[in-house]
Amino acid sequence: MSGSVMTDQLRADGSLRHLLTLEGLPRTQIERLLERSQGFVRPLGATPAMSRSLAGATVANLFTEPSTRTRVSFELAAKRLGAQVVNLEVQLSSRVKGESMLDTVYTLQSLHVDAFVIRDAEAGVLGLVAANVAPHVSVLSAGEAHVSHPTQGLLDALTVYQRKQRFEGLAVAMVGDIRHSRVARSAWHALHTLGVGDLRIVAPPALMPERDEFAGCTRHTQLATGLKDADVVMMLRIQKERMGQGDLPQGAAYFAAWGLTRERLALARPDAIVMHPQPMNRGIEIASEVADGPQSVIRDQVRNGVAVRMAVLAEVLTSRAGGA
Amino acid sequence: MSGSVMTDQLRADGSLRHLLTLEGLPRTQIERLLERSQGFVRPLGATPAMSRSLAGATVANLFTEPSTRTRVSFELAAKRLGAQVVNLEVQLSSRVKGESMLDTVYTLQSLHVDAFVIRDAEAGVLGLVAANVAPHVSVLSAGEAHVSHPTQGLLDALTVYQRKQRFEGLAVAMVGDIRHSRVARSAWHALHTLGVGDLRIVAPPALMPERDEFAGCTRHTQLATGLKDADVVMMLRIQKERMGQGDLPQGAAYFAAWGLTRERLALARPDAIVMHPQPMNRGIEIASEVADGPQSVIRDQVRNGVAVRMAVLAEVLTSRAGGA
Amino acid sequence: MSGSVMTDQLRADGSLRHLLTLEGLPRTQIERLLERSQGFVRPLGATPAMSRSLAGATVANLFTEPSTRTRVSFELAAKRLGAQVVNLEVQLSSRVKGESMLDTVYTLQSLHVDAFVIRDAEAGVLGLVAANVAPHVSVLSAGEAHVSHPTQGLLDALTVYQRKQRFEGLAVAMVGDIRHSRVARSAWHALHTLGVGDLRIVAPPALMPERDEFAGCTRHTQLATGLKDADVVMMLRIQKERMGQGDLPQGAAYFAAWGLTRERLALARPDAIVMHPQPMNRGIEIASEVADGPQSVIRDQVRNGVAVRMAVLAEVLTSRAGGA
Repeated sequence: MSGSVMTDQLRADGSLRHLLTLEGLPRTQIERLLERSQGFVRPLGATPAMSRSLAGATVANLFTEPSTRTRVSFELAAKRLGAQVVNLEVQLSSRVKGESMLDTVYTLQSLHVDAFVIRDAEAGVLGLVAANVAPHVSVLSAGEAHVSHPTQGLLDALTVYQRKQRFEGLAVAMVGDIRHSRVARSAWHALHTLGVGDLRIVAPPALMPERDEFAGCTRHTQLATGLKDADVVMMLRIQKERMGQGDLPQGAAYFAAWGLTRERLALARPDAIVMHPQPMNRGIEIASEVADGPQSVIRDQVRNGVAVRMAVLAEVLTSRAGGA
Repeated sequence: MSGSVMTDQLRADGSLRHLLTLEGLPRTQIERLLERSQGFVRPLGATPAMSRSLAGATVANLFTEPSTRTRVSFELAAKRLGAQVVNLEVQLSSRVKGESMLDTVYTLQSLHVDAFVIRDAEAGVLGLVAANVAPHVSVLSAGEAHVSHPTQGLLDALTVYQRKQRFEGLAVAMVGDIRHSRVARSAWHALHTLGVGDLRIVAPPALMPERDEFAGCTRHTQLATGLKDADVVMMLRIQKERMGQGDLPQGAAYFAAWGLTRERLALARPDAIVMHPQPMNRGIEIASEVADGPQSVIRDQVRNGVAVRMAVLAEVLTSRAGGA
Repeated sequence: MSGSVMTDQLRADGSLRHLLTLEGLPRTQIERLLERSQGFVRPLGATPAMSRSLAGATVANLFTEPSTRTRVSFELAAKRLGAQVVNLEVQLSSRVKGESMLDTVYTLQSLHVDAFVIRDAEAGVLGLVAANVAPHVSVLSAGEAHVSHPTQGLLDALTVYQRKQRFEGLAVAMVGDIRHSRVARSAWHALHTLGVGDLRIVAPPALMPERDEFAGCTRHTQLATGLKDADVVMMLRIQKERMGQGDLPQGAAYFAAWGLTRERLALARPDAIVMHPQPMNRGIEIASEVADGPQSVIRDQVRNGVAVRMAVLAEVLTSRAGGA
C-alpha cells in the first residue's frame, strides 16, 4: 500500500470516499470515525441504533464465502441505516481476468449500487475496483488478503478506547501469527496513528513479519517479555495448517509455548484487557478461561464492529456531494 | 426432552421465551399461540397480515441447507412483522466442537440478534444454544433431528381446529414413518395436550417407535384398522433410503401396502381431512388424487405455517421485559 | 411457444398477467411497458426510483445459480417498489418430476408469494408453472433455456429507443451465436413488433438458427455485409465451449473472423450504437476498445434493466383485481 492509495481514499474536500486501509489515514479522520462509531454503540439487549439516513442507498456485499460474521455485521449495519443490501458470492480475483471482474462491478454500479463491501483473498483487487468505479461510488474493505482489514482495526481501537479512555501511554501487545495477519496490520496502523507509544509484536520467529514492516513496534520472541505490564493483549488467530511447519510446534505444544493462559496473563497489568478478532482456536492460541474471563472484551469487539461499519457507511455515503 | 427443558422454555412470569419442543408446554400456552396464529391467517390471494410490531428486532435463520420452505416461511413471518432478518448457512452441530459453535452464536448475539431460528440434524444442539444465550434472546426450533418440530405441530393443530372446530372427540391417525418423524412427535405433543382422545399411530413394524414413546396413542400395524372412522389422516413423508431395508417394501410395493389411496381414505369418516407436512412422495406414501383431492388440507397447512411462525416470533419477542 | 401461451399471458381484461415471452405480445402492450420503464430510469449517480407501490406484495426469485446479475436486478427492482423478496435456489427442472416441482411452487404460493421470477435452463417449465398457479399469481421469466428472455428484449428495445427516438427505418444487426441465444429471440420479437424493418441476423453457418425461425429477418454469413450501414449492432455472447466445434474457429481465430473491432464497426453508420447483453468475452466476440468506446451503450442496458423489471413487476401486480 503506497501513499497514492491512501490519498485516493479521500475526496478533494478531505472527506472519506473509500476505506481500503488505515495506513496513512489522518489521525483526525480516524478519530472522527471512532467518535461516530461510539454514537452507534448500544448495550447488549437494547434496541440497536437505527435510522433512515441511508434510505435510497444500495450496498452490495461481495464475498467469496457464503456467509461470514463480517458479512452479517456489514449487512446489519447497512440495513439499520435504511439502505438496501444485496449479497453476492463472486470470484473477484484478478485471476478471473481483470476486465471481466470489473465488468461485474460496472454492472452492479449501473444497478445503482452506491457502496461495495468486498472481501478478497488476493491483494490488490480492492484497489483496482476503487480506482475504476464512478466518482459517487465507494469501496469498503471487509478484509484483503494478509494486507488489511480496516474496520477490524477501527473496532479494535474503539474497544481499547472504551476501556482505557486514552491511547497515549498504553502498552499494547499483539501476539501470535503477526506475519500473515491483516488484523495485526490494521491494528498497528490504527493504534500507531492514535498515539500508542509502546506497541509490541510478540511471535515465534516463524510468524514474525519482515523487518521493514511494523515500523515503530518492538519485537518479542518470548511471550513473557511481550506480555510484561501490557495494558492490552491482542491475541491473533493461528491457521492450523501453519502449525508444525518450520520450527512451529503443533496443537498442544503450540499452546504450551504460545497459548494465553491465566498464569501468563498475570504478567500483564492487573487491569489489562484481552482481545481476539475471532474465530478463536480455544486451547491453541487462547485458553477458554481467558477467552471467557473477566478481562476479555471479545464480545465488546463484535458489538463495536457493527457500530464501526455503520459509521463508515454513513461517512462515505453521506459525505458525497448531495449526500445519500 | 426432559422436564427441565420444557421449564426452561418459559420465563419466570410464565411467558414463552424459547420454543424447542411442544412437550410439556401448558395447554393454555398452546391455545394462546393458536389463537394468536389464527389472527395472522389470511385467505390465499389476500394481502398477508403485516405490521411493524417487531421493528428494531433482528432474527437470524441458522440453517444447514441453502434454502428450504421452512426457512422461507420463517423469513417471511419475521419480515412481515417488521423485523430484520439475516440468513446464515452454518454448521452448528456439536461435532463442530461445542465451544466454537457457541462462539458463533455469541457473535450474532453481540450483533443484536434477538431470536435464533435453528434447524439442526443433531439432537441437543438447540437446547445447548438456548441454555447459553443472553436472557433477552430467544431460540426457536425449525426442526431438530427426529426429536421435534414445534411450529409444524402447532400448524397441524391449527389446521385441524379450523376444519373441525374442536379437538375433543376426534380420531386422528398418523400414518407412515412415525419412528423417525419429528413431525409426528410434535403433532402428538400438541394434539394430546389439546385433548384429542383417539390418537393413533399407524405404521409397519419397522417404522414403529419404541414402546415407551407416544404414550396415550394406540398402535396399528394395519392401515385399514388405523384409518377406520378417522376424522383426521396425517400422512408422513418416508425417506426413500429407508424403503427396502428390513421388512419394508420398496416404491410401488410400499405404495401398494401403505399408500393412501382414495379407496383407503373411504375407510375414514366421509368428512375426514388429509394432511401431509411436505415434501410429498406422490405415488409412494400418498396418491396424487388424494393429495390434490377435496379432503386435502395440505395447502392450508403451509398457509397456516407462516401465521404460526408470526405468532411465535411475536410471542417470544414482545413478551420480553420492555418488549421488542 | 404457441399462440396459446401468449394469450395466457394476458388477463381477460387485456392486462398483463405473466411475462414468459414477447412473442405475440401486442405492440400496445410492449409500448406501454417501455413507457412505464422509462419513468423508472434515473441517471447513474442519482437516487434510484423508489416507491411503496408494491408494499404487501411478495416476490420469490427462483434461480438455479447462487447469484447472477439478473437476479440482483430483479431483487432490487422489487425492493425499490416496496415488495418483500425471497431468494431461493431450487431445481425446478421438469426432470425433478413435474408434480414435486409444482408442489414447491404451490407451497410458496400458500406463503402469499404473488410473483415468481424464474430462470430455468429447460424449456417449458415456466409455462407449466404459469398454467398452474392461482389466478392472482404472476410468473415472470428471467431467462428460459434458448427460448426467451423477455425483460432483456424489453431493455434492449428501450435502449435503442433512448438513443434513436424511433424504431421505424432503423437497421439492426444481431451478431454472433443467434442459434442458441434467448437474448436474440426476445430482441427479435420486440424489435419486429415495434416496427424495425431492417432486422438482420449475422452469424457463421454453424450459429445460424433453423430456417423457420426469425421470420422477417435477413440472414448474413459475412460480418461485413451484416454490419453495413447498421444503426444498431447487438453483439451476443458466445459460449466458449461451442468454439472449435464444427466449422467454428476458436479464440483468437474466432475474434479474427467475427469479433467486433473498431475497424469493423466503421462499416456501420457513424452514429451506430453497440449493445451486448453481458457477460462479455472481451477479445472473443468484442474488442475492449469497442465495448468501452463512445458508441457503446452496454452500461445503459444494465441501468435500463432494473427499470424494465420495475415496470413489469408493477404492471402485473397492480393490474390484478384489487391491485397489489
